[in-house]
Amino acid sequence: MNRKAFNRINYGLFLVGSVLEGKYQGCVVNSLHQITSSNPAKFSLSLNKSNETYKAVEAAGSFAATVLERGTPKELVDLFGYKSGRVVDKYEGFQVETDGAGNPYVKDHALARISCKIVDKLDLGSYVLFVCEATEAEVLGEGPAMTLDDYRGEGGATPAAATVVRIVEEVAWRCTICGYIAERETLPDDYRCPICRAPKDKFEKM
Amino acid sequence: MNRKAFNRINYGLFLVGSVLEGKYQGCVVNSLHQITSSNPAKFSLSLNKSNETYKAVEAAGSFAATVLERGTPKELVDLFGYKSGRVVDKYEGFQVETDGAGNPYVKDHALARISCKIVDKLDLGSYVLFVCEATEAEVLGEGPAMTLDDYRGEGGATPAAATVVRIVEEVAWRCTICGYIAERETLPDDYRCPICRAPKDKFEKM
Repeated sequence: MNRKAFNRINYGLFLVGSVLEGKYQGCVVNSLHQITSSNPAKFSLSLNKSNETYKAVEAAGSFAATVLERGTPKELVDLFGYKSGRVVDKYEGFQVETDGAGNPYVKDHALARISCKIVDKLDLGSYVLFVCEATEAEVLGEGPAMTLDDYRGEGGATPAAATVVRIVEEVAWRCTICGYIAERETLPDDYRCPICRAPKDKFEKM
Repeated sequence: MNRKAFNRINYGLFLVGSVLEGKYQGCVVNSLHQITSSNPAKFSLSLNKSNETYKAVEAAGSFAATVLERGTPKELVDLFGYKSGRVVDKYEGFQVETDGAGNPYVKDHALARISCKIVDKLDLGSYVLFVCEATEAEVLGEGPAMTLDDYRGEGGATPAAATVVRIVEEVAWRCTICGYIAERETLPDDYRCPICRAPKDKFEKM
């Protein structure tokens, strides 16, 4: 079994948002997919249970997702892919609107927005696979969608917090402050988290 | 609800194969996705029940999938995406190997091969969502993966038989010979199926 094979798959990137206790929670995922062409169309969304957005989607029973355009700044993906909603308000400074269920979505760099309600779910251990029905959908832009390969091409690693295709190398280190994962054997003494600047001693071996 | 929003999503393209009653069945899908990064990794696969490959995967409880490379000839995608295993042997003429469970995979234009066994499933009406565990995985090539946008960029419509993101336009016509779907209001009198050359009177309105 060569798990690097999994990394050959390309995916679209999406920004998924929901609300938990009045606070917006959102993250970048590659795990939103249309799974039927019935009407209403069904989608699946896989989220890691440790994720704040998972908790919000689970509680709200719905979410809004935007399809990110190619050329979306790496900073936006990094912010929503690596930083935790526990420590930052990711939505500050963006054009944010809400759908009929109150879920937030960022209009910046969005090609389309699809809102969904959860109709079923499968517990997969550390992940939950939600089965959803589209409740609202609108086109917001033209042009190609951003893919994981596009993002990697700009020097980004697969976002850690929310996506599921990241290759887990033999050794990796997780930043206990922001959740960033450094996939490397060792961290130099002067290492700092590229996202939140936490020093080496804030990293734990995975 | 503007269903065109769904079309903004980009997907990888895969060739999925299994065996039914000793015969290889396979099709092109965009609906294979990694859904956990646990070990073994889990994947989901959504298939339309009318599809011969669905019947094979359902019966065999397993399948082999290859990740298609960018630059995969449109003819290969058309063959596995539009023709039915009921009428042609799609595997003829390709470099075909089988995995440990006997499932066929085409090495031509493959970046990776992932074999999976079904561990759970959700009935979605006209589709079934299979939850699977990877049993074998190998890297077969280097370079970027083919996406639906790449394929559309070459003038291809979304493969009809196996994928689920195709926009159903107001009016579409299905070729009763090979299953090709023409998404247009009317068919000219001299219209011929671009896949199997069937004339206009072999098309039925959807």
